[in-house]
Amino acid sequence: MTIAKFEDHCWKDIVTPEILQTYTPYHRETYIGQRPALLAIDLYNLVYEGGPKQPHELVKSHKSSCGIYAYNAIKPTQELFALARSLKIPIFYTTTETRKEVDPDTISATNRERIEVDDKAYRIREEFKPETGDIIIYKERASGFFGTPLVAHLTQRGIDSLIVCGETTSGCVRASSVDAYSLGYHVSIVEECVFDRSPLSHKVNLFDLHHKYSDVMTLEETKENLKRERPRREK
Amino acid sequence: MTIAKFEDHCWKDIVTPEILQTYTPYHRETYIGQRPALLAIDLYNLVYEGGPKQPHELVKSHKSSCGIYAYNAIKPTQELFALARSLKIPIFYTTTETRKEVDPDTISATNRERIEVDDKAYRIREEFKPETGDIIIYKERASGFFGTPLVAHLTQRGIDSLIVCGETTSGCVRASSVDAYSLGYHVSIVEECVFDRSPLSHKVNLFDLHHKYSDVMTLEETKENLKRERPRREK
Amino acid sequence: MTIAKFEDHCWKDIVTPEILQTYTPYHRETYIGQRPALLAIDLYNLVYEGGPKQPHELVKSHKSSCGIYAYNAIKPTQELFALARSLKIPIFYTTTETRKEVDPDTISATNRERIEVDDKAYRIREEFKPETGDIIIYKERASGFFGTPLVAHLTQRGIDSLIVCGETTSGCVRASSVDAYSLGYHVSIVEECVFDRSPLSHKVNLFDLHHKYSDVMTLEETKENLKRERPRREK
Amino acid sequence: MTIAKFEDHCWKDIVTPEILQTYTPYHRETYIGQRPALLAIDLYNLVYEGGPKQPHELVKSHKSSCGIYAYNAIKPTQELFALARSLKIPIFYTTTETRKEVDPDTISATNRERIEVDDKAYRIREEFKPETGDIIIYKERASGFFGTPLVAHLTQRGIDSLIVCGETTSGCVRASSVDAYSLGYHVSIVEECVFDRSPLSHKVNLFDLHHKYSDVMTLEETKENLKRERPRREK
Repeated sequence: MTIAKFEDHCWKDIVTPEILQTYTPYHRETYIGQRPALLAIDLYNLVYEGGPKQPHELVKSHKSSCGIYAYNAIKPTQELFALARSLKIPIFYTTTETRKEVDPDTISATNRERIEVDDKAYRIREEFKPETGDIIIYKERASGFFGTPLVAHLTQRGIDSLIVCGETTSGCVRASSVDAYSLGYHVSIVEECVFDRSPLSHKVNLFDLHHKYSDVMTLEETKENLKRERPRREK
Repeated sequence: MTIAKFEDHCWKDIVTPEILQTYTPYHRETYIGQRPALLAIDLYNLVYEGGPKQPHELVKSHKSSCGIYAYNAIKPTQELFALARSLKIPIFYTTTETRKEVDPDTISATNRERIEVDDKAYRIREEFKPETGDIIIYKERASGFFGTPLVAHLTQRGIDSLIVCGETTSGCVRASSVDAYSLGYHVSIVEECVFDRSPLSHKVNLFDLHHKYSDVMTLEETKENLKRERPRREK
Repeated sequence: MTIAKFEDHCWKDIVTPEILQTYTPYHRETYIGQRPALLAIDLYNLVYEGGPKQPHELVKSHKSSCGIYAYNAIKPTQELFALARSLKIPIFYTTTETRKEVDPDTISATNRERIEVDDKAYRIREEFKPETGDIIIYKERASGFFGTPLVAHLTQRGIDSLIVCGETTSGCVRASSVDAYSLGYHVSIVEECVFDRSPLSHKVNLFDLHHKYSDVMTLEETKENLKRERPRREK
Repeated sequence: MTIAKFEDHCWKDIVTPEILQTYTPYHRETYIGQRPALLAIDLYNLVYEGGPKQPHELVKSHKSSCGIYAYNAIKPTQELFALARSLKIPIFYTTTETRKEVDPDTISATNRERIEVDDKAYRIREEFKPETGDIIIYKERASGFFGTPLVAHLTQRGIDSLIVCGETTSGCVRASSVDAYSLGYHVSIVEECVFDRSPLSHKVNLFDLHHKYSDVMTLEETKENLKRERPRREK
């Protein structure tokens, strides 16, 4: 893979040539692991609230919405789910723990102001609805690994790598991907299927993740890669 | 604290008014915890190699150097250390594990190309030299908490918060700060005392950290805050 | 504290003088930490099923019951709860996660045969009913720390130690106490308030825990200790 | 596997028929996983000090020695190592961290009285000497997983199970095995290759581990099992 190809992603309009030069020691081939799982991060109703508008237009009434960025990711994420299901890649969802007796107001994902939400707020959006055999990880922090048994599920299924989609790029996607890397998993992130409230944070976090911890791939690359090296699922 | 003051940091020349509006739900008072420790991340010789030049000018010969950004942080970091020592705030350093038999080539902090280094590369730089009673945490991943007993040290000393300095903002500083937040510590980051190879990643990561996980403070604010609320050190 | 007093516990009828001699390097003063929480492990209905009989008489119909040993611990545990509530010691309960979508059949506490249970099986028994402000930790493994955010709760509340009760001594009590020790908490276990299906495993696990990881105390010692050094609860 | 065979281990002279009846719901087939690693726990010089005597005879001069029990395990453990090396099963050792700057006196494996030791005390004993490619995990607590990057090594090598030997059964072997189970690894423990200072704790901990968290096997069973299902080592 050429450096030009390695860097051919959404961040190229804001990262200077000097920075790209500084990051040449991170250049390498990207790939998807042999026995991946799909990790779908926080695709719950709350982030779609208010419709496909700019987040700053929604913030007064819908503090947690990612607006237009959430909606733009729906179609590619549906394609990614269809591909994963057709290849029998195990699917793990994360969402927010809401049971009052675990005190989710004290232990929360970020410093964002707490809001009262209804029962449906943290349910997975209809387009990505969990099916029998899928697993939902309820979490209270940004990372899908912190305070959850996710690692036990992955180990018991012989999973060696993750394909990541969901939100937000600078929040739960980044925290989960860094933890996955630390734990020894190869992480691929599908560019069109992750999103954020801030386009700047989206781009820079993908840049950071791609160089340091994971392989950012376009949906097209992901498809080609998965078709080329069909993951073995003996277990 | 006004929003203007809350946002008066290095990122203000690149974050748009729309993004700032989107992030208003993160606005809050910043502070330092009651029983803090200083966490000095990866202040080892390697990141100063080649002298105070731009990182892209150094990358061929010194792949890990932060160049001018590392040097700019020396004086404020010395001030921060002096303050911490005068207040008897416990000091924890992180650095990279190098013992061959633990296989540091397989388990490394990021995807950056491995390089051969000499014995001194990962020693703490002279200006910040550990003293008796300071503790060094050897780590193999980006976060000072991953694969280390750091949390046990903090718990046994009754520490409830961290003051963070070191490098890189988008690497080990971010990973350590997010983990600290997840574990329940209040995290303050001293703006002039953290640095990165990329000024863009530096600014955006500080922006992300400040809003989501920690309180970015100038050195001046840190000093005032620490003098105002002298941490209790009964234990 | 004399060695005779240090060893004056339920294990003294089965531990030989030679073993006691081998364990003299573990002799020390026992105590309760300054800012403790009560950790009530798995006091759910299922372990009381079938009434106060010997576990081997119940095993066919009630595989998870601790029978008579569970019932014997009710009264002292009520006393312990009353004391904790009167001293405003925070109370954390653990119980078993049952939501089907997290796949609790795959990830379970031990290798014990899975059984179908009704909704009330994993609810806390009436005598120890959670009150407002108490926190319930849902777990899937033996340790209350594994795959849960318990450590974040403890850190955010400035808790430095645990007082442990519940079941089983050789299962979740031991796993939780060892993890607590590793994480840096001082752990006290109230002898009359922990129980097991096997009296042999109960005694030997208390012996192991007392010497290696925690301070086993009688209820009487616990009371005296807590009255003597009333924990500070400033936070 | 019959229950008689399942229970045909060192604990049968102390576990009553009533307890065995209570533990029937734990009865199952035992096995070794498909891609195991050998985890050799704390086979360092210190536990052999003073020679093959009873631990209570050694305790005054050699507080950490396991005496005769350590020596009895040498030959079977050598056989186990030879088998593992012949099958190219990866070998991980644990030993105690001794670098002063990490403060090993504050963070230690158990409450046993600290002793001054020389440089060789925590080196692996000559008979089990690490070879190139073996990995040593330096730890400060009982579990080989706590505060170490062991899980990252296992994940990156696609390891799904552990074969455990070393000491002590009631200390580091138990803590490591329980953590491994929690993390999702299948754990086998080789009966003749684990040992303890107390024969009572040895037997009861093996009983607990066998029923709840792992498969205790004789060396003979281990050999047969490994020859029958040669682990795949594609990675």
